Amino acid sequence: MGTGAGRAGRVWAHVGQAFTEAEYDVVILGAGRMGTACALFLRRLAPGVRLLIAERGGLPNEEGATILAPGVWTLLDAPPGREGEARWVHAQVAGELGDTQFRPRALLDLHAGVVPGARSTTATLARFPEAAPLIDPAALPFARVDEEAVTYRPGSVALACGQGAVRAGADLLLNTHAHLVRGGVRLDRLTVTNTHEVVTHETHEVRAGVVVVALGADGPHAAEHDLGAHTAHGRAYRQTPRLNVPSDDWTPTLRAGGLTLRPQNGGFTLIPPVHHRDPQGYLPTGGRLTGVPVGVRRETLEDLIALMDALPPLATEALEVGRSLADVPGAWLALPGGRADAPPLHEEVAPGVHLLLGGPLADTLGLSVAYDLAARVAGVEGRPWEEG
Amino acid sequence: MGTGAGRAGRVWAHVGQAFTEAEYDVVILGAGRMGTACALFLRRLAPGVRLLIAERGGLPNEEGATILAPGVWTLLDAPPGREGEARWVHAQVAGELGDTQFRPRALLDLHAGVVPGARSTTATLARFPEAAPLIDPAALPFARVDEEAVTYRPGSVALACGQGAVRAGADLLLNTHAHLVRGGVRLDRLTVTNTHEVVTHETHEVRAGVVVVALGADGPHAAEHDLGAHTAHGRAYRQTPRLNVPSDDWTPTLRAGGLTLRPQNGGFTLIPPVHHRDPQGYLPTGGRLTGVPVGVRRETLEDLIALMDALPPLATEALEVGRSLADVPGAWLALPGGRADAPPLHEEVAPGVHLLLGGPLADTLGLSVAYDLAARVAGVEGRPWEEG
Repeated sequence: MGTGAGRAGRVWAHVGQAFTEAEYDVVILGAGRMGTACALFLRRLAPGVRLLIAERGGLPNEEGATILAPGVWTLLDAPPGREGEARWVHAQVAGELGDTQFRPRALLDLHAGVVPGARSTTATLARFPEAAPLIDPAALPFARVDEEAVTYRPGSVALACGQGAVRAGADLLLNTHAHLVRGGVRLDRLTVTNTHEVVTHETHEVRAGVVVVALGADGPHAAEHDLGAHTAHGRAYRQTPRLNVPSDDWTPTLRAGGLTLRPQNGGFTLIPPVHHRDPQGYLPTGGRLTGVPVGVRRETLEDLIALMDALPPLATEALEVGRSLADVPGAWLALPGGRADAPPLHEEVAPGVHLLLGGPLADTLGLSVAYDLAARVAGVEGRPWEEG
Repeated sequence: MGTGAGRAGRVWAHVGQAFTEAEYDVVILGAGRMGTACALFLRRLAPGVRLLIAERGGLPNEEGATILAPGVWTLLDAPPGREGEARWVHAQVAGELGDTQFRPRALLDLHAGVVPGARSTTATLARFPEAAPLIDPAALPFARVDEEAVTYRPGSVALACGQGAVRAGADLLLNTHAHLVRGGVRLDRLTVTNTHEVVTHETHEVRAGVVVVALGADGPHAAEHDLGAHTAHGRAYRQTPRLNVPSDDWTPTLRAGGLTLRPQNGGFTLIPPVHHRDPQGYLPTGGRLTGVPVGVRRETLEDLIALMDALPPLATEALEVGRSLADVPGAWLALPGGRADAPPLHEEVAPGVHLLLGGPLADTLGLSVAYDLAARVAGVEGRPWEEG
């Protein structure tokens, strides 16, 4: 098998490269941020573990929630008692994992009413003049500041963790669609025909004592469909429209009414609140703004409209709502436990099969939950964020 | 116009009956419970008002939420301060409006934890032995009882109010699809072809100073589509599967975990909780139970599964989940303000155009809100449920 300690793993990028493995100790499905981090931590904690990562697309995956995740780390998103764990995640994205486009960037949490720890928005904006053009302080007079907040790129985390895992000895099989079967996985290696159709080129069964399902919002469905297990997890389709108001490296991240405005590429990426799950069978569709079809779904439009007085640029052409769904980046987001405010989790859905879910709070707690599962699989007690 | 005080109104049931009216004072769209009640109260409060009710189907409408509404009146559903208003609704369904299949029937509200006013479920079931086979008191040890609760049939209310309104002088135009236009409505009179296609036979424009949009879950869409008005209302698709456990006239209504079990036709009709709106563009679809397709949507299945320990008959074949969506009665329910717990309301969405919404609490407060709008249109001060 040749994936022992000290040797780099192998990578199969396309079906021209022969794949003949029949057994691993652990197979991880999905090379998003959660799966690659779990792989890296597992190889570090248990260098002898024979580990395969199977990914439907490339590295990083370009379709899942990782690429569109805001990459906003803030203690405001850490549930009480998990601040130390969040700080450990901070250290990982700050440099432990490699280049993640990490940047210290304060977060202003704006409110219409009093909240604990809030100051006057006007006084706060004097310290953050880059944010002033976005906010009507009369509509949002109270502001909390998380001075420790940072931004980073979750896609870079997945890339760094994936490459790190391979360097640490994990094998990586790309362009492969995986199914759970008894005692392992069935791997369909995909290829693209001359007519741009994605087809299965060949199929392998691989035995594995442990399978980690890190398929994001598709994970619960895979566990149910392949195993007949019932899960209570949900998903929501979240779009991240762009707001073309200038931003730079010193512009803080803003949050108001659940909407996050994340400075990015000289403007802002809007991350709308997730209020609740979408029903099974829902196909995302665009909405209408004063009768004109737009690419942003109706529910998100309503949230943006409700904030137009407080954040005046939302009422201008600086907001890119597109003409159809394809114009606005969007992805399905896992909702652990079916809830929009639940932290990442892992759950053993069948003997040896672990579901690993990131969800809305993955930027702040995803890596530690991935570590926790890796440590559990490796049989390691103690977690690095626990008090000595 | 001939709809003055003391004369019955006219009814146009099909396109063979010539309709030549060009103007009314008030047009009410929709002959569900909310629209017919508003019509009846308006004719009583303002007998000279020239009033037309336009309904897409028959009387009562057989497709809307009225027919599938549980018909459970309980003070537990009256927001604080609106108990007197709810009692006025009680008096209406108890006999003021005619036969509504009214029946006093206690409501048992069951809980896993302590709630104010709760007693032991075991002691409570001693008083209601008909309910004992449905409940595991160990899982739901606390019970509140609303001794004043009643059941009735909202479809009978719509029929009684519609007929009462016509007797009081309102005109009624059936099988007519209505659109809002400036200063009135456009009425498409529908007919069915030999090939069972529903087509528009003829179109009329009718002027009206006031239009009441009582189209249930379709009302907000009509206001938006026809007027360009923005509303924050939502809707949810609620199915009401049947539970074949015997019930009789003395069986109480049960409620647990938001699920209402309403004794009906010798068994129970289940009314699942509405947690939140469905997204725009959602097409209801059935779910799967241990891999088998069923007619109940996934979200409702999850709610039922979560209650199977507490309500053991839900885990048996007594629960009719069907094979496809068509097997399980269901209807779109308006959610006033987009919220699942909001009482009925009316709202002037454009000058002279009033949206009237029932929603999840219409059984307890729908008639009074319909009265309130009628009184406002009639220019009448004071409401009968207010303290003298």
